[in-house]
Amino acid sequence: MRTTSAGVFKIATTGPGDVSGLMALIGSGAIDPKSILAILGKTEGNGGVNDFTREYAVAALCAALAPRLGLSPEEVEQRIAFVMSGGTEGVLSPHLTVFTRSEAERPAGLSGKRLSIGMAHTRDFLPEELGRSAQITETAKAVKAAMADAGISDPADIHFVQIKCPLLTSDRVEAASARGNKTATTSAYASMAYSRGASALGVAVALGEIAPDVRDEDVLRRYDLFSKVASTSSGIELMHNVVIVLGNSAASVSEFEIGHAVMRDAIDSAAVIAALESVGLGFAPQATNGRGLVNIFAKAEASPDGSVRGFRHTMLEDTDISSTRHARAAVGGLIAGLAGTGAVYVSGGAEHQGPAGGGPVATIARLSD
Amino acid sequence: MRTTSAGVFKIATTGPGDVSGLMALIGSGAIDPKSILAILGKTEGNGGVNDFTREYAVAALCAALAPRLGLSPEEVEQRIAFVMSGGTEGVLSPHLTVFTRSEAERPAGLSGKRLSIGMAHTRDFLPEELGRSAQITETAKAVKAAMADAGISDPADIHFVQIKCPLLTSDRVEAASARGNKTATTSAYASMAYSRGASALGVAVALGEIAPDVRDEDVLRRYDLFSKVASTSSGIELMHNVVIVLGNSAASVSEFEIGHAVMRDAIDSAAVIAALESVGLGFAPQATNGRGLVNIFAKAEASPDGSVRGFRHTMLEDTDISSTRHARAAVGGLIAGLAGTGAVYVSGGAEHQGPAGGGPVATIARLSD
Amino acid sequence: MRTTSAGVFKIATTGPGDVSGLMALIGSGAIDPKSILAILGKTEGNGGVNDFTREYAVAALCAALAPRLGLSPEEVEQRIAFVMSGGTEGVLSPHLTVFTRSEAERPAGLSGKRLSIGMAHTRDFLPEELGRSAQITETAKAVKAAMADAGISDPADIHFVQIKCPLLTSDRVEAASARGNKTATTSAYASMAYSRGASALGVAVALGEIAPDVRDEDVLRRYDLFSKVASTSSGIELMHNVVIVLGNSAASVSEFEIGHAVMRDAIDSAAVIAALESVGLGFAPQATNGRGLVNIFAKAEASPDGSVRGFRHTMLEDTDISSTRHARAAVGGLIAGLAGTGAVYVSGGAEHQGPAGGGPVATIARLSD
Amino acid sequence: MRTTSAGVFKIATTGPGDVSGLMALIGSGAIDPKSILAILGKTEGNGGVNDFTREYAVAALCAALAPRLGLSPEEVEQRIAFVMSGGTEGVLSPHLTVFTRSEAERPAGLSGKRLSIGMAHTRDFLPEELGRSAQITETAKAVKAAMADAGISDPADIHFVQIKCPLLTSDRVEAASARGNKTATTSAYASMAYSRGASALGVAVALGEIAPDVRDEDVLRRYDLFSKVASTSSGIELMHNVVIVLGNSAASVSEFEIGHAVMRDAIDSAAVIAALESVGLGFAPQATNGRGLVNIFAKAEASPDGSVRGFRHTMLEDTDISSTRHARAAVGGLIAGLAGTGAVYVSGGAEHQGPAGGGPVATIARLSD
Repeated sequence: MRTTSAGVFKIATTGPGDVSGLMALIGSGAIDPKSILAILGKTEGNGGVNDFTREYAVAALCAALAPRLGLSPEEVEQRIAFVMSGGTEGVLSPHLTVFTRSEAERPAGLSGKRLSIGMAHTRDFLPEELGRSAQITETAKAVKAAMADAGISDPADIHFVQIKCPLLTSDRVEAASARGNKTATTSAYASMAYSRGASALGVAVALGEIAPDVRDEDVLRRYDLFSKVASTSSGIELMHNVVIVLGNSAASVSEFEIGHAVMRDAIDSAAVIAALESVGLGFAPQATNGRGLVNIFAKAEASPDGSVRGFRHTMLEDTDISSTRHARAAVGGLIAGLAGTGAVYVSGGAEHQGPAGGGPVATIARLSD
Repeated sequence: MRTTSAGVFKIATTGPGDVSGLMALIGSGAIDPKSILAILGKTEGNGGVNDFTREYAVAALCAALAPRLGLSPEEVEQRIAFVMSGGTEGVLSPHLTVFTRSEAERPAGLSGKRLSIGMAHTRDFLPEELGRSAQITETAKAVKAAMADAGISDPADIHFVQIKCPLLTSDRVEAASARGNKTATTSAYASMAYSRGASALGVAVALGEIAPDVRDEDVLRRYDLFSKVASTSSGIELMHNVVIVLGNSAASVSEFEIGHAVMRDAIDSAAVIAALESVGLGFAPQATNGRGLVNIFAKAEASPDGSVRGFRHTMLEDTDISSTRHARAAVGGLIAGLAGTGAVYVSGGAEHQGPAGGGPVATIARLSD
Repeated sequence: MRTTSAGVFKIATTGPGDVSGLMALIGSGAIDPKSILAILGKTEGNGGVNDFTREYAVAALCAALAPRLGLSPEEVEQRIAFVMSGGTEGVLSPHLTVFTRSEAERPAGLSGKRLSIGMAHTRDFLPEELGRSAQITETAKAVKAAMADAGISDPADIHFVQIKCPLLTSDRVEAASARGNKTATTSAYASMAYSRGASALGVAVALGEIAPDVRDEDVLRRYDLFSKVASTSSGIELMHNVVIVLGNSAASVSEFEIGHAVMRDAIDSAAVIAALESVGLGFAPQATNGRGLVNIFAKAEASPDGSVRGFRHTMLEDTDISSTRHARAAVGGLIAGLAGTGAVYVSGGAEHQGPAGGGPVATIARLSD
Repeated sequence: MRTTSAGVFKIATTGPGDVSGLMALIGSGAIDPKSILAILGKTEGNGGVNDFTREYAVAALCAALAPRLGLSPEEVEQRIAFVMSGGTEGVLSPHLTVFTRSEAERPAGLSGKRLSIGMAHTRDFLPEELGRSAQITETAKAVKAAMADAGISDPADIHFVQIKCPLLTSDRVEAASARGNKTATTSAYASMAYSRGASALGVAVALGEIAPDVRDEDVLRRYDLFSKVASTSSGIELMHNVVIVLGNSAASVSEFEIGHAVMRDAIDSAAVIAALESVGLGFAPQATNGRGLVNIFAKAEASPDGSVRGFRHTMLEDTDISSTRHARAAVGGLIAGLAGTGAVYVSGGAEHQGPAGGGPVATIARLSD
């Protein structure tokens, strides 16, 4: 019986322009470039507006993959979903995670649900729709489409939903204005949070985590509304949302399994351990026989109320280091300590992604055989 | 029978100049100001050369304690050992730890070793002695004197040795030069590392952790030579070393106990858990019945070889955030996650304090009763 | 005939806690501590929310002046207007400018207008009044009162108006809310800009630079409304505005004169030279015979439209260095180059203080005799 | 008569990957891509070890120019000298300066010396030669060869010598060590200063600014030895020095002229004005009839003695902002103010390039006709 298989490859990089690890895996036949669906990366910039390591990494990957795919670099950027998260503070280590999907023959006797990946796009948004219910509703639709693409029908089987979403620029704000419409904000920086937040709420709606009647004014305000599996990231290069769902499916013959938990705050070690245990791993997974840790995906943020479990933090008042850099360093230190490696994907900006001050944490393990 | 008792008080602060928490405990009678031996603090500066929160905190504490002790602020600074560690990156929370010592009556039936504190000073050093064998040898002597002061004879009962040590200024370098002598370095910044390193080696010699024949050229080079319990910090205001030993003694009737472990690298969660277990606590100590966590004291640094367990870190090459800030954020995140609180003492600059890239981690628990 | 004299003393400091220069001038009799009206300082912090060098400097000055004035440190802080501007980026050099006022006998034959200083306070504001017309109107009244105090009636004789104004805290926002009122913003950081902006507009109204009918919604929006001489700075320690006017008066027998110009952008060297020339100095004032430069006072900001004379700047998009630090460094470099010294007062946050991207620049010269 | 012509084009960029301005000039025929000799750029990174905007800019330029030159991107990087200087602090504006050289017919009646450009390479260095007399001597030879290439024989006609030089990596240090040789330093970061310093001393030797007998131990120590026209910049991608000399030659029919002066410290406005005047421009060159400013090239650094004209600066002790960023912001502010534009080339790291704390400043003007 023909079915699908999802692959996951973690590749350390020596800099944002380093594509040698991926090219070596392609050269050896371990990765078929045509099977690449998405690449998530941690790059060593500051993760802020002026972090050029993200676009540099994407440019380098597109240039390197273009001849292998018989496409132009621009076409590669359209075909593969690139999500680069800047900021490897503390012990975090720059790396790429390459997701592949291919048809496969189901071996006899294989049982259990296994990693499956699906993708979908929304339509292009108008600038005035970003950060508002239109973006929420359309994202919810796309999440359902991506679930279908992944062959997953039960929301409980979805463990991580990575979304790339647009942001506002002054041109886009003016275009809305010329139509007589106001955008959610006029600031490019603030629009990133709005877009991330609405996209995360769209995931929550699609998975039934919250009721579908989210209002425009709830975005970036009602932080009790959130998804436990959404991870969203905004970029200037698109006007629609790209949705990647990662879950487990009985139809998949992948060698991998995914699970998740929710950090209720930035020091929630129990949640990190629960995420490891959800895929049969434990604390210090290196020691685990058989199953092996591939990667952990988490979102981090400085809790907006200025404290963690009753003790004041100083991340939001530091004029020298942005709070997103602080949060990645701290949460990255905790996850790395529990996972036994700094090559984990910890990303900042967790609006409506987990509770305020916390965030989702997903784990992918390679199954024993 | 008369004996001694050591007290430990952790006090959250609202800023480097905030003395209200300490004054309230003095006002309520919980702390007798005359019993205060040392105050260790985490302040919210950058921990670097231009971190003025440390001297501001000391100035505020001296001004506030002066009338309670019938001394001038300058005399308070001489009487009490103030060790302020700047930098509360990530989830770390600004606070003070106040150590007291007083005579007490031994209750009948009390058994076991309990927290005991001892202090001692070296003689003043010549600038050319800093970072060299003279500083090592004199520090070792002072550690032994402080052990005697604490009533501890077995090095195995020593779990944390906090040292304040001098640094070089251009005036001090010139004074040495005028005598025809060269200092270990002419840079004030570099001299801090030399002084911290030699002081830590002095602890290692005193406790028999390394052989006493350390040579000048081993300082900041032979990182295989280190102490598992030394925590050293250099300051401009003194020319001698102040040594505070924290250990357990059968002579103490303190309500507290101390233990330690050694982090072999910045993600060594097992060591943090071992340090918690060494005083009868466990992972998530808040849940522990009876015994309670008071504080954790740890040193952190970016591993000099640029990697942690085989994965590259980017702390040493970041021009925007100093590696000490990165390291405190990451190690602070891990320890806070395992301890369940960000109000822990994580300090940077761990030369010869634990192995390269790692550092000592000590825990004080309040005993159940 | 009895009249008044205003004195100005520029004192280099070795750190935010350094009061030795001021104490030496008091010890030598050059400064009578009772004559001190205001102290403006540049301290070496980051100038942001977590810049503790400002309060440290004020605490050190109050503690040092208290015994000389027979007051408690708290009373000193009430008596003297302390305005500390954090941030000595680039070539800017930490220093204090001490303003004194005393009665004097008018020498025969003295002519011309000379430096005169006046002070006044507004009433305490309600939190909901900050950043709005109430603050504008009350500030305008206080500016007129301070002009009268300085013996100056012609607005053309006013060259610098330094204002200290309140900010919002969460407690203050809640107090307004409990009264059923909304504040201009709920963010402490944003409230600083609102309070600075409204205070500057109050100066503009008082001096007839703009019409008095400024509306609440003009604050931080209508940047075409501004004062050419206002310099405002918000602090948490007060709920009213303190207004210090610096101008020239025929009644003054001061040895000093003040003038000003307006920088239309951050590279407006012509304005800096005009400010120097307005008090009889020129480019490279050190070379000027007779008259000597005392200090320059300027406000700097990154132009909100992202460019300077048609060329893009990157200050507003830098996640690692705040735009206020960039702006002080650049404008400080220009003014220092033209003034021949880095010991100048360049402060950030110039809302409604000069045109957008520019700011006022005032110069005080010592007269030849 | 056939002779050469040198062209200079300043092109604003919207980001480090923006090549559109250059492509447009090529598309319009204004620039013949085959005539491009060198591209100097200011990119908006931090200018430090982890500034990836420099290599990103070079990668983008090489990819864009490759099809125009019929070469691979790697061959473009070999053919054209790319010198990217990271850091557009303060008002500095990201831009490229493209230098071209082509054969031309000398018009009758043309007189005077005009801009001429020459290039030369040294042989590859051994790692142990970097920062030492071998690098000095070979660089001096290459400077003379580049002068010949430019058709300039009189050192007084040389106004700017831009050098790209190697740095040490751990591999290179080990290679030296395997040969039994020690390198000048084992730190990659420190090696950049050594290589820049030795290269600048090579220029000084070639131009007769200093005696040729410079010893290894003079590098980074004898700061009284310096070149008034050297600007050096180290990069990981080469093991030899690339030398670009810019001067004036009677053989050139260029529309441009170059001149220079030397800033004796970071606030030396007189030197900047002298550099403008050396090419017939003045203060506020925009207003100058006929001649027009093309660009200014300067090196900046924090004065190593910690003060500027007797006043303390705080650049060297700031743990949050590197001194090179401070220095570029301040000197950039001054030069932009005097030049009337932030699109100037101000670069950090001025070892032996101008006096300690100062640096060379060169100006290129377009001639009137």
